[in-house]
Amino acid sequence: MKKAAIISVGNELLNGNTVDTNSNWLESRLLTISIPVVYSCAIIDDIEEIKNAIEYASRKANIILITGGLGPTDDDITRDGIAKFLNVELEYHPEIFKKMENFFLSINRPLVEKNRIQAYLPVGASEIENDLGTAPGIFYQDDQKIIASFPGVPSEMKQMFDKSIFPKLQSLSADNLVIKKIKCIGAGESMIAEMIGDMMDRGRNPLINCTVDHGIITLHIIARAKDRKIAEDMAVKDTEKLQHILGPLIFGYDNQTIAEVAGQKLAEKKKTLATAESCTGGQISKMITDVPGSSRYFTYGWITYSNEAKISQLGVDKKLIEQFGAVSSEVATAMAIGARKKAGSDYAIAVTGIAGPEGGTEQKPVGLVYISIVGPNSVKTEKFLFGSRNRDFIRLRTCQVALNLLRLNLSI
Amino acid sequence: MKKAAIISVGNELLNGNTVDTNSNWLESRLLTISIPVVYSCAIIDDIEEIKNAIEYASRKANIILITGGLGPTDDDITRDGIAKFLNVELEYHPEIFKKMENFFLSINRPLVEKNRIQAYLPVGASEIENDLGTAPGIFYQDDQKIIASFPGVPSEMKQMFDKSIFPKLQSLSADNLVIKKIKCIGAGESMIAEMIGDMMDRGRNPLINCTVDHGIITLHIIARAKDRKIAEDMAVKDTEKLQHILGPLIFGYDNQTIAEVAGQKLAEKKKTLATAESCTGGQISKMITDVPGSSRYFTYGWITYSNEAKISQLGVDKKLIEQFGAVSSEVATAMAIGARKKAGSDYAIAVTGIAGPEGGTEQKPVGLVYISIVGPNSVKTEKFLFGSRNRDFIRLRTCQVALNLLRLNLSI
Repeated sequence: MKKAAIISVGNELLNGNTVDTNSNWLESRLLTISIPVVYSCAIIDDIEEIKNAIEYASRKANIILITGGLGPTDDDITRDGIAKFLNVELEYHPEIFKKMENFFLSINRPLVEKNRIQAYLPVGASEIENDLGTAPGIFYQDDQKIIASFPGVPSEMKQMFDKSIFPKLQSLSADNLVIKKIKCIGAGESMIAEMIGDMMDRGRNPLINCTVDHGIITLHIIARAKDRKIAEDMAVKDTEKLQHILGPLIFGYDNQTIAEVAGQKLAEKKKTLATAESCTGGQISKMITDVPGSSRYFTYGWITYSNEAKISQLGVDKKLIEQFGAVSSEVATAMAIGARKKAGSDYAIAVTGIAGPEGGTEQKPVGLVYISIVGPNSVKTEKFLFGSRNRDFIRLRTCQVALNLLRLNLSI
Repeated sequence: MKKAAIISVGNELLNGNTVDTNSNWLESRLLTISIPVVYSCAIIDDIEEIKNAIEYASRKANIILITGGLGPTDDDITRDGIAKFLNVELEYHPEIFKKMENFFLSINRPLVEKNRIQAYLPVGASEIENDLGTAPGIFYQDDQKIIASFPGVPSEMKQMFDKSIFPKLQSLSADNLVIKKIKCIGAGESMIAEMIGDMMDRGRNPLINCTVDHGIITLHIIARAKDRKIAEDMAVKDTEKLQHILGPLIFGYDNQTIAEVAGQKLAEKKKTLATAESCTGGQISKMITDVPGSSRYFTYGWITYSNEAKISQLGVDKKLIEQFGAVSSEVATAMAIGARKKAGSDYAIAVTGIAGPEGGTEQKPVGLVYISIVGPNSVKTEKFLFGSRNRDFIRLRTCQVALNLLRLNLSI
């Protein structure tokens, strides 16, 4: 049976400065292909420590994943640790160095001599390609075990694991596993769990796991069967059940974002969108334009951080601000109507609020936000209280809720 | 010298569902009393595993902190693992059971027979009092080592550690530790390492560690001395050395962001800023307004995603777009000049580029970006090639470089 162990290398992981999120991510990925993680550890940048950790891990597991310590600096010694464990030398790979030269050329930066060390691999090991950075990963396999070593940078590690290692490990797993993700917004984890009931029982197949990330609840449906078709049918059946139970709380599937789903609806209907942001300061527009091709429906955005900007750019009546304040239902509505008119768009989103930590009053506390969605036949402005806990939290929640209101508006 | 290791016990820590925050918290606390954590691991609920983990940890460290596995259920077996490691029996402590009875009485809940197991400790060990829950901790000390075992519930563990164990460890610690962080942008990790040279040697005091996150290089200076004042002087001296070597590559210290540093400079000079974003779609403004109080200097922002918006909102000459294209030095400059004028601000940042994945040509490939910074006495527009790898990467790099150019411009 396949069992995995994860070794995280780096002094910074042991001094309280950096929380290691890589292990957790790898554990989740391995779970989807039925490979349990039986051990994980964090160790300092030291060749002997790395060698010992691999030795110890290899007594518990036959798949050893290592993150960190593949950079070009003197404290990056994972490659030496692996070589020491395998009892082999490091070997220079000119073709890897060539690739690094091309990478540096493409980003217009000089390659320095220090980088050459990254073109060395333990004898018998091969390269794991890194499309996002210079440090190649290290792959080693024999009858007893697999060792795969990645840079510690999460974006690089994830891309490399999913592209090169996940398919290899998946093929080792006996069962066929089909995973579907259902993404929800608008209710908390415990409420969704209560709605779903015993579909979340631990022994169940499909297994339904629930994860939460910044207000987005993701349900992972993990169906397992010897036959792939059967597993797929099981996952589809559960998806339909959950659609029936959760209805409009579901905004998308797999890795979709709310901005992506709302954007798709705009593109399908050949409608355009403008934004007018105060407290979110550009974050809604950023999330909309994270989606490739968003220029098809997103045309204009304003960040009217000052009152003056709201008046001169969006045509908000000065008297409205004087009478109701910049953070008010009236001003949010006027911002949306103004943005829609100035941009000549079909829809407009406007937000105004108090993101804090300063600027709150008893009547208008930190966390108070007004969101307005204006469309061809509708004007809808809502008040929200997102609590006073944290500026980033209030801003992100505002963006998510605004985009979700647009999505719901477009679904009618 | 005192060295610590942390063992986290629990199946849930290894299936990707629970991030272990206890280790990180303990590391931070130990750092303040100069006790380095040299190893941490997460293991499954298994007596033999726990015994092995303590054995392995005790070869690296003389202070072993364990969290998790002290509850009343059958999978809580940390106390058995410790007893097995110490090669002793478990011993019943009626006074602990009495305390538990009182605790349950106070919260009006029935004590069940299952709880009795929590009144057992390995022979030779003593209780760590738990004021917040039923599970007492386990403390053991001999000439070679200290073992302290806590429940996994973070609030209980933290309270118990701070009340009972921290003072004990503090009295053992001989050294004082001072940590300073230096944040750099504008050169890769390898080039910075080459510039710093042997200051990054592993055995050196202060120790200098290097971490990278999305193009930001952080140097951690960790100075250690018996006397706090001496450690501080050492850290300051190294900071000055690095300032001399790295010069303008350093943008800030500790947890500062580039947007924060540039914003501080604007606030100090009582200057204002406007933004005009095309390919970054609001992300620069988002980063500026992540900083509390940014409304002092940030007033207006435009997201001119369409050509039409560039013309109508920023007054970019239509002929410029026709002649040079929307992604050109000329249009970037005209956007910045237009934004500065319309906002009546002192400075303006404008960016236009091709973030991909679509829209690139041979002449204007994905990753081509123009950034323009216009100030009271200067107009500066630069061309960048950020490579074709990834939309998020190109956009984030554009934002960082644009904010860094503004910072450098404000430093003159």
